[in-house]
Amino acid sequence: MNHFGRLFSVNIYGESHGGGVGVVVDGVKPGIKLSEEDFTYDLSRRKSGGLGTTPRIEDDEIIIDSGIFNGYTTGAPISLRFLNKNTRSKDYSNLVKHPRPSHADFTALCKYDGFNDYRGGGHFSGRITLGIVAAGVIAKKMLEGVKFTTKITNLGGETDSSKFQEVLRNTVMEKDSVGGIVSICVDGVKIGLGEPYFDSIESILSHLLFSVGGVKGVEFGTGFKGASMRGSEFNDPIIDENGKTKTNNNGGINGGISNGNPILINAFVKPTPSIGKTQETYNLINGKIEKLDIEGRHDAAIILRAQVVLESMVAIGLADLKLISDAYKK
Amino acid sequence: MNHFGRLFSVNIYGESHGGGVGVVVDGVKPGIKLSEEDFTYDLSRRKSGGLGTTPRIEDDEIIIDSGIFNGYTTGAPISLRFLNKNTRSKDYSNLVKHPRPSHADFTALCKYDGFNDYRGGGHFSGRITLGIVAAGVIAKKMLEGVKFTTKITNLGGETDSSKFQEVLRNTVMEKDSVGGIVSICVDGVKIGLGEPYFDSIESILSHLLFSVGGVKGVEFGTGFKGASMRGSEFNDPIIDENGKTKTNNNGGINGGISNGNPILINAFVKPTPSIGKTQETYNLINGKIEKLDIEGRHDAAIILRAQVVLESMVAIGLADLKLISDAYKK
Amino acid sequence: MNHFGRLFSVNIYGESHGGGVGVVVDGVKPGIKLSEEDFTYDLSRRKSGGLGTTPRIEDDEIIIDSGIFNGYTTGAPISLRFLNKNTRSKDYSNLVKHPRPSHADFTALCKYDGFNDYRGGGHFSGRITLGIVAAGVIAKKMLEGVKFTTKITNLGGETDSSKFQEVLRNTVMEKDSVGGIVSICVDGVKIGLGEPYFDSIESILSHLLFSVGGVKGVEFGTGFKGASMRGSEFNDPIIDENGKTKTNNNGGINGGISNGNPILINAFVKPTPSIGKTQETYNLINGKIEKLDIEGRHDAAIILRAQVVLESMVAIGLADLKLISDAYKK
Amino acid sequence: MNHFGRLFSVNIYGESHGGGVGVVVDGVKPGIKLSEEDFTYDLSRRKSGGLGTTPRIEDDEIIIDSGIFNGYTTGAPISLRFLNKNTRSKDYSNLVKHPRPSHADFTALCKYDGFNDYRGGGHFSGRITLGIVAAGVIAKKMLEGVKFTTKITNLGGETDSSKFQEVLRNTVMEKDSVGGIVSICVDGVKIGLGEPYFDSIESILSHLLFSVGGVKGVEFGTGFKGASMRGSEFNDPIIDENGKTKTNNNGGINGGISNGNPILINAFVKPTPSIGKTQETYNLINGKIEKLDIEGRHDAAIILRAQVVLESMVAIGLADLKLISDAYKK
Repeated sequence: MNHFGRLFSVNIYGESHGGGVGVVVDGVKPGIKLSEEDFTYDLSRRKSGGLGTTPRIEDDEIIIDSGIFNGYTTGAPISLRFLNKNTRSKDYSNLVKHPRPSHADFTALCKYDGFNDYRGGGHFSGRITLGIVAAGVIAKKMLEGVKFTTKITNLGGETDSSKFQEVLRNTVMEKDSVGGIVSICVDGVKIGLGEPYFDSIESILSHLLFSVGGVKGVEFGTGFKGASMRGSEFNDPIIDENGKTKTNNNGGINGGISNGNPILINAFVKPTPSIGKTQETYNLINGKIEKLDIEGRHDAAIILRAQVVLESMVAIGLADLKLISDAYKK
Repeated sequence: MNHFGRLFSVNIYGESHGGGVGVVVDGVKPGIKLSEEDFTYDLSRRKSGGLGTTPRIEDDEIIIDSGIFNGYTTGAPISLRFLNKNTRSKDYSNLVKHPRPSHADFTALCKYDGFNDYRGGGHFSGRITLGIVAAGVIAKKMLEGVKFTTKITNLGGETDSSKFQEVLRNTVMEKDSVGGIVSICVDGVKIGLGEPYFDSIESILSHLLFSVGGVKGVEFGTGFKGASMRGSEFNDPIIDENGKTKTNNNGGINGGISNGNPILINAFVKPTPSIGKTQETYNLINGKIEKLDIEGRHDAAIILRAQVVLESMVAIGLADLKLISDAYKK
Repeated sequence: MNHFGRLFSVNIYGESHGGGVGVVVDGVKPGIKLSEEDFTYDLSRRKSGGLGTTPRIEDDEIIIDSGIFNGYTTGAPISLRFLNKNTRSKDYSNLVKHPRPSHADFTALCKYDGFNDYRGGGHFSGRITLGIVAAGVIAKKMLEGVKFTTKITNLGGETDSSKFQEVLRNTVMEKDSVGGIVSICVDGVKIGLGEPYFDSIESILSHLLFSVGGVKGVEFGTGFKGASMRGSEFNDPIIDENGKTKTNNNGGINGGISNGNPILINAFVKPTPSIGKTQETYNLINGKIEKLDIEGRHDAAIILRAQVVLESMVAIGLADLKLISDAYKK
Repeated sequence: MNHFGRLFSVNIYGESHGGGVGVVVDGVKPGIKLSEEDFTYDLSRRKSGGLGTTPRIEDDEIIIDSGIFNGYTTGAPISLRFLNKNTRSKDYSNLVKHPRPSHADFTALCKYDGFNDYRGGGHFSGRITLGIVAAGVIAKKMLEGVKFTTKITNLGGETDSSKFQEVLRNTVMEKDSVGGIVSICVDGVKIGLGEPYFDSIESILSHLLFSVGGVKGVEFGTGFKGASMRGSEFNDPIIDENGKTKTNNNGGINGGISNGNPILINAFVKPTPSIGKTQETYNLINGKIEKLDIEGRHDAAIILRAQVVLESMVAIGLADLKLISDAYKK
């Protein structure tokens, strides 16, 4: 449900147009220096503003309610909140009649018997990811020596990053949207994280990544491209006593356990489902297929803002696995 | 660790060369007709024997220790076991010195301080998946009306299935190995399975799939190919009151919840790491890079036998999500 | 840690002198009518004000941040908060030097390396129970037909309730404190709640009850008094087809499963550790045993306010067990 | 359900008259010396044989299937099993008609729709506790420096242990049964175990203790007797820098966290429900209240054999809490 983590855990809540969104982070080590400013950078990476992002701009000011005392974490749960301020009081009831294609409108309607808050996607809104980014900041503080490098390596089919602005311009002009691939490289993870059988690193990280709306593919190392390789080519020979490998086709993970090499992750983020272009959908009231024009403020390429969210998810998963691993240290 | 599932849960154990392998399945509905014969078909799909599979043949006879009474499940945990019979008492200590590339040898050695059972991969052996297949059989019994269609859609880069035998012949001849892509289509899943935020269908299924050794990629619907699509193309318009969609690029899942259309899953299985060809690896004792010849009986294409294992994992995840969903039914 | 529940779950946070306290309640059925007023009655039962309770009076106004839409639960997590208003900005650093006897001061200091928020007990404060009471209100809404009767049956050794005011008067006069026994009778629980082996009703309820500060004993049915009974006397003969029993020495539970008879629970709440009387304690700085006078506003009989908290815990546990049981209903 | 523990976890299964009973223990540290002989002592403490115990004698030989290699734990799950040998093939269908008072017969029948294995109590049989004792042996190995002292302090109302044989003789003669109180003192637990809010030591231990059939009361320190004490008397003054207290009314736990003093636990075990004396019960078939004579081999004082089971449960809980605590060590 809305809770994840065995020791380092996160519990999220909130809706796009309700009072706000938030997260309760538990299992944090006491004695970590932490203040509002620590969240600024990652939250700014999630912000809208640039080309291809929504014109709805929120200040995303973080409110810390608990778990910090005299500037340090206490070991008690940390409650982090964000108010919803810039919500437009328009009529969203249209969504009930006309579920938007590729959105959660229809499935949520069915699952929650029509009681779900559908305004702006409600609990399915990307706004929920504010809490994830905030939790990720704390997770990173628990991962000393670990470095994340996150970038888009494919935008709407284009893999040359110098042409991404052009892709965005065209997409916005066409009132359409694009997805792509986020690539995350995690350096500095010690050997031994991951808890097979079921809690392999890949299992934990994919669990978290796939909970982000729009993620429809996760791969490690070569990923699917490795389907064309022979074993003799795919295997990564160890070349030193620290387990460094010549190649890294396994993405830094063997048997579900980190092997000391960089952890390489790709996540496919589907094209933003909300587009300006006219679409067709079923009218649940009159039973006809009708034209649908989605108004409101949307992201033509939510993947731009998703980068830091996915990176945060990886940090959350690794922080939990690190604690578990530490429990067994001599 | 070795336990997964909130209500329908599995707990696995065992090693390749120990007494045997097994699984304890809990949270099973009482009153399901179940006997040894019910396991025969799926266990046979996992068996070796054909081209590209290991010559180590075990009879894989299932032993039911508990949870069945008068031919029906009782609601108590079901213990299922398999004896290890056809183990060769050879010297495996070589593996400690020479960790095999792309295997768990090195990471397990580090993580478990050298105490892991390394014979035949120990707890990391594919033999553990016997318990998964057995648990999957029970899971399927709890998923009335659900149908699984599982096949290999890419074998060593080849996507034309009529040429797979050729790929295998060449691979075996070259003393090499191949991986590929397993595609699973699940029909008949009702609308409403999946528990966002964290327990989306994709999260639960990927968690389970990535715990299988060798799985390095999981995607739903179009998967990574969707990176080249525009939103207007990717979105799946609803065309009837049951939520049927014109296309199924989302793979039957919206917002982490099943939408009533077939659930489409691809999993990339890496080439079997054990190959007959000479490889290089680091000698942990003398600090030199040395030639490594892996003896023993191995699968040139473990993906052949992995199909039913991955299908079983999907069944296990869906059975758990179905129970959770049922808890909230009126 | 701060999360409990398999399906219906609660996640609490907050400190006595921080921004506030709160709870995130997840796994709630959609479609339950719920507004701020629903919490008034149980929150008022927890309030101070009467003889034997602290003069610190907070208005305990509940703030609902999420999970409610148009007056009904949505199925998304419900965030409930309470601000801390009436906190005295005095110097609490004394507690670090002089850990108060029978409080968490010393153990928290050690466990959290001195980083815990010690002001007013911090996360160990009874103020945290506001979230429990709020969660309990929702739990009760999910338990249709279930009725709770909660009372004090022993106050400082006195079992005649007509003399409780006298006990309180004497205790306050002596600047001392009393504990006692809270007895909860739960009527209307259907047969079949409880998930042996480990999640028997007794296990789940005691787990929750013992997490309330000051609870040091939990018993069901006759409880410890049954040690003097013979089996022939203790056994509860079934007398009708609904499982009604002649006696109820087992407290409505057999084999960890509700048997349809009233569930009978006693919980021992220890005397409030904060007393006005001079005590002795160890001075961690100078290593001497010194006199300690605890200032501040305290409850001479926290048990008075604990009643509704314990009742809420029972409701939380039963709501979770009911959902699990419902998952297996035909 | 049948799984407990966050890191150190146990998963039990089995029935009284099925193939056997067992436990899978996960989260065990690698490198612990462990062989069959290590289980002998505690298993012998659980054995029948003496006055007041059942004449059904099983050899209780332990079978280790996995998780041990070269005499040491490997870090992989340990499967431990016991065969059922001495089962009498008599007709138990009587129990369906005549549910035995104070047994799980009636509740299990209802909960599992009549599919439960009722022979000898099935999954509710005390025989299941073999797995608990076995898991406890491993738990104790993970608790270096911790010492358990377990004894009966009340047998059928008698608290003078020199008269216990007399109590047993009388009880057996009367074809009746007795319960009593098991007292466990745990020495050597370091300061800092326990994970408030919800996973206080008391919560975890009571959860485990109450899952043992027949336990109907758990208290720490003075327990219920403390209801008569004033705070000034109940509070335990700290007298040295290690947190040693003058008295130990709190039973070694403050705020749900171990304080370094001995942990004191009492558990009330109800009189064995199976008695030789004629009882009354409801006949579910004909709707009449009828005489019931329970045949078979039973314990007049199951509490005698329960001692080591309860001690094992405490060890299991402490081992898990110790690992969690270790995860946060510097």
